[in-house]
Amino acid sequence: MTTATLLISCPDQKGLVAKISDWVFSHGGNILHADQHADGSAELFLMRVEWELDGFDLERAEIAPNFAQLAIADEAKWSIHFSDYVPRIAIFVSKQDHCLYDLILRQRSQELAATISVVISNHPDLEKVAHNFGINYHYIEISREHKLQQEKQQLALLRQYQIDLVVLAKYMQVLSPEFLSEFSQVINIHHSFLPAFAGANPYHRAYKRGVKIIGATAHYVTDELDEGPIIEQDVIRVSHRDSVTDLIRKGKDLERIVLARAVRQHLQNRVLVYGAFANSNLGLRTVVFD
Amino acid sequence: MTTATLLISCPDQKGLVAKISDWVFSHGGNILHADQHADGSAELFLMRVEWELDGFDLERAEIAPNFAQLAIADEAKWSIHFSDYVPRIAIFVSKQDHCLYDLILRQRSQELAATISVVISNHPDLEKVAHNFGINYHYIEISREHKLQQEKQQLALLRQYQIDLVVLAKYMQVLSPEFLSEFSQVINIHHSFLPAFAGANPYHRAYKRGVKIIGATAHYVTDELDEGPIIEQDVIRVSHRDSVTDLIRKGKDLERIVLARAVRQHLQNRVLVYGAFANSNLGLRTVVFD
Amino acid sequence: MTTATLLISCPDQKGLVAKISDWVFSHGGNILHADQHADGSAELFLMRVEWELDGFDLERAEIAPNFAQLAIADEAKWSIHFSDYVPRIAIFVSKQDHCLYDLILRQRSQELAATISVVISNHPDLEKVAHNFGINYHYIEISREHKLQQEKQQLALLRQYQIDLVVLAKYMQVLSPEFLSEFSQVINIHHSFLPAFAGANPYHRAYKRGVKIIGATAHYVTDELDEGPIIEQDVIRVSHRDSVTDLIRKGKDLERIVLARAVRQHLQNRVLVYGAFANSNLGLRTVVFD
Amino acid sequence: MTTATLLISCPDQKGLVAKISDWVFSHGGNILHADQHADGSAELFLMRVEWELDGFDLERAEIAPNFAQLAIADEAKWSIHFSDYVPRIAIFVSKQDHCLYDLILRQRSQELAATISVVISNHPDLEKVAHNFGINYHYIEISREHKLQQEKQQLALLRQYQIDLVVLAKYMQVLSPEFLSEFSQVINIHHSFLPAFAGANPYHRAYKRGVKIIGATAHYVTDELDEGPIIEQDVIRVSHRDSVTDLIRKGKDLERIVLARAVRQHLQNRVLVYGAFANSNLGLRTVVFD
Repeated sequence: MTTATLLISCPDQKGLVAKISDWVFSHGGNILHADQHADGSAELFLMRVEWELDGFDLERAEIAPNFAQLAIADEAKWSIHFSDYVPRIAIFVSKQDHCLYDLILRQRSQELAATISVVISNHPDLEKVAHNFGINYHYIEISREHKLQQEKQQLALLRQYQIDLVVLAKYMQVLSPEFLSEFSQVINIHHSFLPAFAGANPYHRAYKRGVKIIGATAHYVTDELDEGPIIEQDVIRVSHRDSVTDLIRKGKDLERIVLARAVRQHLQNRVLVYGAFANSNLGLRTVVFD
Repeated sequence: MTTATLLISCPDQKGLVAKISDWVFSHGGNILHADQHADGSAELFLMRVEWELDGFDLERAEIAPNFAQLAIADEAKWSIHFSDYVPRIAIFVSKQDHCLYDLILRQRSQELAATISVVISNHPDLEKVAHNFGINYHYIEISREHKLQQEKQQLALLRQYQIDLVVLAKYMQVLSPEFLSEFSQVINIHHSFLPAFAGANPYHRAYKRGVKIIGATAHYVTDELDEGPIIEQDVIRVSHRDSVTDLIRKGKDLERIVLARAVRQHLQNRVLVYGAFANSNLGLRTVVFD
Repeated sequence: MTTATLLISCPDQKGLVAKISDWVFSHGGNILHADQHADGSAELFLMRVEWELDGFDLERAEIAPNFAQLAIADEAKWSIHFSDYVPRIAIFVSKQDHCLYDLILRQRSQELAATISVVISNHPDLEKVAHNFGINYHYIEISREHKLQQEKQQLALLRQYQIDLVVLAKYMQVLSPEFLSEFSQVINIHHSFLPAFAGANPYHRAYKRGVKIIGATAHYVTDELDEGPIIEQDVIRVSHRDSVTDLIRKGKDLERIVLARAVRQHLQNRVLVYGAFANSNLGLRTVVFD
Repeated sequence: MTTATLLISCPDQKGLVAKISDWVFSHGGNILHADQHADGSAELFLMRVEWELDGFDLERAEIAPNFAQLAIADEAKWSIHFSDYVPRIAIFVSKQDHCLYDLILRQRSQELAATISVVISNHPDLEKVAHNFGINYHYIEISREHKLQQEKQQLALLRQYQIDLVVLAKYMQVLSPEFLSEFSQVINIHHSFLPAFAGANPYHRAYKRGVKIIGATAHYVTDELDEGPIIEQDVIRVSHRDSVTDLIRKGKDLERIVLARAVRQHLQNRVLVYGAFANSNLGLRTVVFD
């Protein structure tokens, strides 16, 4: 069954649920899921509606222009997605393979409705893993002096492979603002319970602080390191018996699971980022429609 | 702000979200929350809509009759609730006080929007607790021979206090089918992760089985012991170091929290029970709109 | 059954388990629990041994001097505790009552083997709660200008009531270094997952950051705000549907449980603080023997 | 660093910790970890001691005979393990690959100190996975009529590959009592929170029952289906939005993690099974020394 999904955020006003669901219904669409959220502090309305395309009386090309005529609000931000479009992912890695394997295996077992088109790395180590599964691998060294130039090679690959989403699967490099201004759909996994232990060496710092629980955080990447909107987090209990090595080992399970959940939610068009409205002093936040 | 909440379940059909949200909007209602669920295996549509009464152009007494004219489906089950109606609770207890204290304190701190009108017990022990908070306490002994008669006294109290909801807060008696046919809005807390260890002595049996996690389950009470639709569950890790006494102690925290969450969800009209439709071999299940 | 418990930390060396358990056994003691931990990074040995006093051939007054003769190491820190000594607790509160109620009720139901001797507050609000349970309540206002003087009154009460442990049960004041140098056995509950959101308004900041999980942390109080050694932490999942008010409500359950666990572990002499050794760049950490 | 680990269970008696740690120390061993548990209801003493072999004055071959002379108790059960012995694992699978991949990748990344010597399956499907990692794969069909004969082939392979541990990684067959009497070191992963939903189709039954949490259980296999001693369990929250397919998907993460933890604990000689003593009506239980 093919479906269309509308994601929309706009200043709150009366009748939005009715207006939008009416629009779907009046064109013969059967709503499968509708979820909506009003953020009082931001005076914002956010909604996700998914309906069957079978029986819908608008051609695909007409849907967006037609919806635009509803003229919901000038500031409204919205997008429409079709379930039979298969997004194309580029996975960025460094030397650790656990998240790479995990994403590939989930994609192979149909947990992730996407194509993993390419693996890009600043190290040659994981080429074999990618090739084992028939995925192209590009090794682009990143050095302090030539970073922008090297990132341009990465961006060229994203264009070449027509990438929709970049997943940083333990990629131990910071993307430059220049990179992000060209390509902004990037999900990262950080190996701590943000905002605790943002930055380098979170497990060592967690050990040193003597925490009793460690975590992992998947978030969209923004210009500010580890400050992007959080999609998913999870935690696991540790004790004095756990050395830094144990924290790293336990954390790997978290990293795998948290990153996979975030990517899945993103691919199902369940994540809306908001917070940039003028009257809001909120940071960037997400609604994850479940 | 006063709100109205519609809870509805009916056979799935096209346009229900539009029809219902349209009805709210056309009468001037501003939808605050709308959540909907389609259970594919039961071919059932379930929805919760909450809207502001301020500006709604129907009188309260008109709302239900007016909605009835929408004629959604013969088999539709629905109810409408107003946020300024304060439900009246009777708490049933035996000798343990932890859930009783917990519910009273949460009600006092406004976590539970309800009146605790009376405490009813088959033991005299907890009278002081109830009186400390100015709540009436009725001790009605339950004996095997006179149980139905004694339950009639309980039912008379429920009528006298105009009770909307009975909460079994570690009430160590089984309610008879006769009781339940007279009064069916009853939430129980069972001290295991159902369906594991249904029936008596769950902690002892959990210990004997050597489980590594124990749980608690809040459910609506039905004629079949511990088989009613589950509202909420939670668990906690145990180890070989935990004796039965430790399991009981750790379980008390679970019981408190799980019961309180279930009562709160119920009071906010977030719980829909379904499963009784003819073509369904499902047990009774709940949707908990969050 | 009365037991003695030895808690010891010292530089690691061969034969310590044998030496210590031998000492217990040679005096006729039956070891009930023995747990030991070697912290490799601190080169430290930490042990907890609990044995039956019945049959032990040393008088209580002799036990410590006798153990001292074992001459384990000059830097060794150790203490011996008897299970029939009932520690005396002072609870410090401000206006919120949930942790106060929780501690009192757990003490009443014998989860906490201690006497709650006095409640001290910078507000008069919770006097009734304390009096309801027959506990003395002292209201000592804290003002910026006279804080040291007011803390002296608090310290006088601690001496008067012969207090062993102070529990800050949502006491919204920072204890001065002067207070702590006089009385250092203080457990605090902080309403965040430290080190995230140390300091003021953690729930508001958690909301603003858009985290998907919130936490609570119980720790010993030191001169550095929210930097003391962590005893216990726990977390709960939140979503975009949770307002700051919901975070506060959900957090209250965490605060209760995390604080109660930490106090219980402390009272059972299961917590050892370490990290101050010269060759260690660790922060202060705890071993919690379970 | 090479270590020796003693695992022992015996009727409780005075001085066992001292006796055993003394024995280690008197032969020059440095104890790295010592943990002990006294099960009051079974009147049983259980202990795990791990010490450095470097400096120990007994040859490996002498250690067991020498310890036997301590004559702790006739009923004592004990075993001694050396950390440089690498156990040999056979993984049994059917058609699902997620646990197989998980175990192989953890072994490759040194989380599991073992050799995966062979994969045995009643289906040919996963041969490629095994071969990708250079592991032998044997396809032995299991049919109702020839099961005992086919299991003999399996047992012959276990002997041929000198297998120490069989891991049932979603092996959808029940091992016969005959198999288990020949080879009893078998860990299984069951896809439910036992004892709930023992037997077939646990996810379907969990869905039907409407539980709010699902689980997975790793246990040693005994003659009674899903009744063997539990090593590890974990759970994950589900909601009305989760179909059976979602339960299966979420459960796969649990299965992977719970099985891997159990295998790791077993390989580190941290698991002791007990309960078979004459005066005990306990089921078989485990102590997992952590």
